Amino acid sequence: MAQPRWLDEEEHHTWRSYLAATRLLAAQLDRELQHDSGIPQSYYEILVRLSETPGRRLRMSDLADASDSSRSRLSHAVARLVANGWVERESCPTDRRGAFAVLTDAGFEALSNAAPSHVASVRAHLFDRLTPEQVVQLGQINDAILAGLREASAEIDQECTAREQERTAPPQVA
Amino acid sequence: MAQPRWLDEEEHHTWRSYLAATRLLAAQLDRELQHDSGIPQSYYEILVRLSETPGRRLRMSDLADASDSSRSRLSHAVARLVANGWVERESCPTDRRGAFAVLTDAGFEALSNAAPSHVASVRAHLFDRLTPEQVVQLGQINDAILAGLREASAEIDQECTAREQERTAPPQVA
Repeated sequence: MAQPRWLDEEEHHTWRSYLAATRLLAAQLDRELQHDSGIPQSYYEILVRLSETPGRRLRMSDLADASDSSRSRLSHAVARLVANGWVERESCPTDRRGAFAVLTDAGFEALSNAAPSHVASVRAHLFDRLTPEQVVQLGQINDAILAGLREASAEIDQECTAREQERTAPPQVA
Repeated sequence: MAQPRWLDEEEHHTWRSYLAATRLLAAQLDRELQHDSGIPQSYYEILVRLSETPGRRLRMSDLADASDSSRSRLSHAVARLVANGWVERESCPTDRRGAFAVLTDAGFEALSNAAPSHVASVRAHLFDRLTPEQVVQLGQINDAILAGLREASAEIDQECTAREQERTAPPQVA
């Protein structure tokens, strides 16, 4: 590997500050959500995602993509939500693309009860700290990061598909 | 609770984008670090912290603060780093404020080997996506969030101390 381009002073400061702020903010919001409503942030996000879809249902694979969660972590969380009576699993025998997760009325109520104090937490620790310009800047910065990550992951997908095609190509018969 | 101030459209967009970008970036960097060097991001951060101190040593409690980690999560991580031979624990019989974690030469070498490709990952997925102005903006935004969180946690500490003093105050003898 060539000599790395180490971070300069400005970048180093930004990177340290990013690491500390993202970690502490996530921990603080999770703590307040659990204290106020007894729901971990990761479960809350799943309920939000389901509540926003028509029929309050999503295929498990789409839910994993939407919540940027790994399949195994999502399965575990959904199992807990099912045990709570907040989510039901539904499988469709004519659709082989997998099971659905469906938000129950009890789940919708739990979400509705938790939302006001969670929004207040997000305001207190994020939006109330920023100017309106910084809110716009933060949105644009995260959009740029996301676009880059999606490009990178699309490239990996293409590479894997290409390799897969090579492997499964019919043998050359000259 | 009074009617919550729900997020407006701009804030909602920024919040969704923040959640997705922070989660995906952390996952991507962790994946690349593990792939290239076999070290999870959380362990890497501990090695960095230790490498930056005089004598490459920190009291466990200071290390927990510096890495924004809970004590129990840190203990677990340090135990794994000790098992790897990268960190040693040292206790000082005349200092009751707890044990030290010390970076070993093998730990410093592991960090030095991992750093170039990790910095390249951070550049590729974060800094190369941003303009120089956005790097400054992102630093200022995270500084503002951090200052708020530290204020909030200082207030809680004060409250706890006040309550503790009330509880332990000598009984009034009129």
